[in-house]
Amino acid sequence: MDKSRRTLLKMGTGLALSSAVTTRAGATPAAIKVPAGSGPAGNALRLVTYQHAAAEAPRLGVVTAQGMVIGVGASARELGMTLAFDPASMVSLIDAGPDAVAQARRCAASGRAHASLERVRLLAPIPVPARNVYAVGWNYLEHFGESLTAKQAAAALPKHPVFFTKGTHTINGPFDPIPFDPSVSVKIDWEGELAVIIGKRGRNIAEADAMQYVFGYAVINDTTARDMQVDHGGQWFKGKSLDGHGPIGPWIIPASDIDYTNLQLTTRVNGVVKQQINTSQMYFKLPRIIAELSLGLTLEPGDIIATGTPSGIGAARNPPEFLKPGDVMETEIDRIGMIRNVIRQVTS
Amino acid sequence: MDKSRRTLLKMGTGLALSSAVTTRAGATPAAIKVPAGSGPAGNALRLVTYQHAAAEAPRLGVVTAQGMVIGVGASARELGMTLAFDPASMVSLIDAGPDAVAQARRCAASGRAHASLERVRLLAPIPVPARNVYAVGWNYLEHFGESLTAKQAAAALPKHPVFFTKGTHTINGPFDPIPFDPSVSVKIDWEGELAVIIGKRGRNIAEADAMQYVFGYAVINDTTARDMQVDHGGQWFKGKSLDGHGPIGPWIIPASDIDYTNLQLTTRVNGVVKQQINTSQMYFKLPRIIAELSLGLTLEPGDIIATGTPSGIGAARNPPEFLKPGDVMETEIDRIGMIRNVIRQVTS
Repeated sequence: MDKSRRTLLKMGTGLALSSAVTTRAGATPAAIKVPAGSGPAGNALRLVTYQHAAAEAPRLGVVTAQGMVIGVGASARELGMTLAFDPASMVSLIDAGPDAVAQARRCAASGRAHASLERVRLLAPIPVPARNVYAVGWNYLEHFGESLTAKQAAAALPKHPVFFTKGTHTINGPFDPIPFDPSVSVKIDWEGELAVIIGKRGRNIAEADAMQYVFGYAVINDTTARDMQVDHGGQWFKGKSLDGHGPIGPWIIPASDIDYTNLQLTTRVNGVVKQQINTSQMYFKLPRIIAELSLGLTLEPGDIIATGTPSGIGAARNPPEFLKPGDVMETEIDRIGMIRNVIRQVTS
Repeated sequence: MDKSRRTLLKMGTGLALSSAVTTRAGATPAAIKVPAGSGPAGNALRLVTYQHAAAEAPRLGVVTAQGMVIGVGASARELGMTLAFDPASMVSLIDAGPDAVAQARRCAASGRAHASLERVRLLAPIPVPARNVYAVGWNYLEHFGESLTAKQAAAALPKHPVFFTKGTHTINGPFDPIPFDPSVSVKIDWEGELAVIIGKRGRNIAEADAMQYVFGYAVINDTTARDMQVDHGGQWFKGKSLDGHGPIGPWIIPASDIDYTNLQLTTRVNGVVKQQINTSQMYFKLPRIIAELSLGLTLEPGDIIATGTPSGIGAARNPPEFLKPGDVMETEIDRIGMIRNVIRQVTS
């Protein structure tokens, strides 16, 4: 690439780019690893939404075990395959059902990689969800305990899942910075969680049928402004909904390719483990969560559910710990992958 | 209209229809009145989203003081006016700014009515919002008092607005039935509220500037399943988010045409007044609500904020009262208008 073109790209001028032309701005860190042996057969499908350059429209890709990105649209053209979905939209792929996943697998198997992972920018798999992110509170018992007073904790265990939402603008890329504005909040806390992506429309879904409505899984951090969570009359929405405070990714793995009930979940800050648990410890399992959430409420393809965080949040530590500019927050689920977000000071 | 065509229309076949062709299915009740003398000059602009037939795509209209609906797209064609927005999308109109409102006013002034109000179906002004409805809790002091125990009420008055959200599928038409499924909830309650429609993008909006971000107003009922509101760990989202439990309308009136601080708000069930207050009694006024909500959170054109309900909800009555199938819930704000929703039993 000649120097003037590279300069233009750095300026984000939105040129139509060939897949060989990349920019490093917002690129995936070179250190990001694809978990070895993901999936029952060691070859889980990893569905990403990515850009080659910041000004380029998002497109769908699949990531190989070797860390190569295959553009689904380009691959389908090479294979002479008519896609059942819009190769620019993850929700379109999800909505198209099993045939669409099969087509993405054909692209992944084609062996025609278009870029290495470090040379693209991974976006949130669903960059603009059609409604707020559903979230479950207190779904690991140790976290339930650490967040309550002794008196509260002495009360009965939860009889129903706690549901709240995160605003759509919380959605952030798996390697993008998390805005930190001290005039808004100085008590930003981590909450590593398993994210579930809904696969088809449903209401009043029976527990026995619930897993049929799951499209796949990703890693999410339900980043939280603790002061705001507390200061608004006990309703958590405001403290859960600062822009960019819901990084998600790095990809979606279809439910068929992974067993969600036995995954190690780890949150690290500056390399120090802060939260660690196995998803087997979830108090309300997915069938119960989906059944209760969908009571009288229609779930849609592409809806996102953050399934709750384990103990180890900063606010419950002694003394309390919160994120500060420059901190690196890593949220990792084995057999899925890791997201890594730097806390970056912004001015309002 | 010949009989065979009328039959086809009743079947909802989705034919391309001329504006003269209507169906009565879901039509606006004949008794709906346009408030006299709305707006500073008695001629407030009333922006609606409507259909002539159930299968027809929604379109924008303006409603005259005489209860006539003028289709904005058709009117613009007659006037030879190139619209600054998509005449099928209220959010497009809002996003286009003051020029778009001026164009809608020209349509309203054209005098070329296309249908009477009773012959169309009014939809929610924004039928599919891009994110959950923002809602404010406890924003009239009497309601704050009725909803708390004596001990809680003795605590300090709220220092910050309480924010929660209602799911996107709560959005319902101003004259559409509210689903009642006894296997989901039998404690459905009313909460009449003033809805605010955001006009432009903003974050960290100063109180002094906040009213510049208000596009207009509508009537909303934050219909609530009280059992679910209570049963999910103190977070209100689930009980606030049953499908169809957020009827809104009948139209949006631009902020320039009305003074939101002095409007009588009334909720009636089967003709009996259950809630009545003047919006002057709001505890947190709009500038404060918008400033606090937008702290670190980007508001977008078309975002909806339900600003809180006064005392008189069913759950706080002695004995408690809840809505049952066949009940007629009317929510009215003078100088805006009334929405009327029948509670209709459905099976899951």
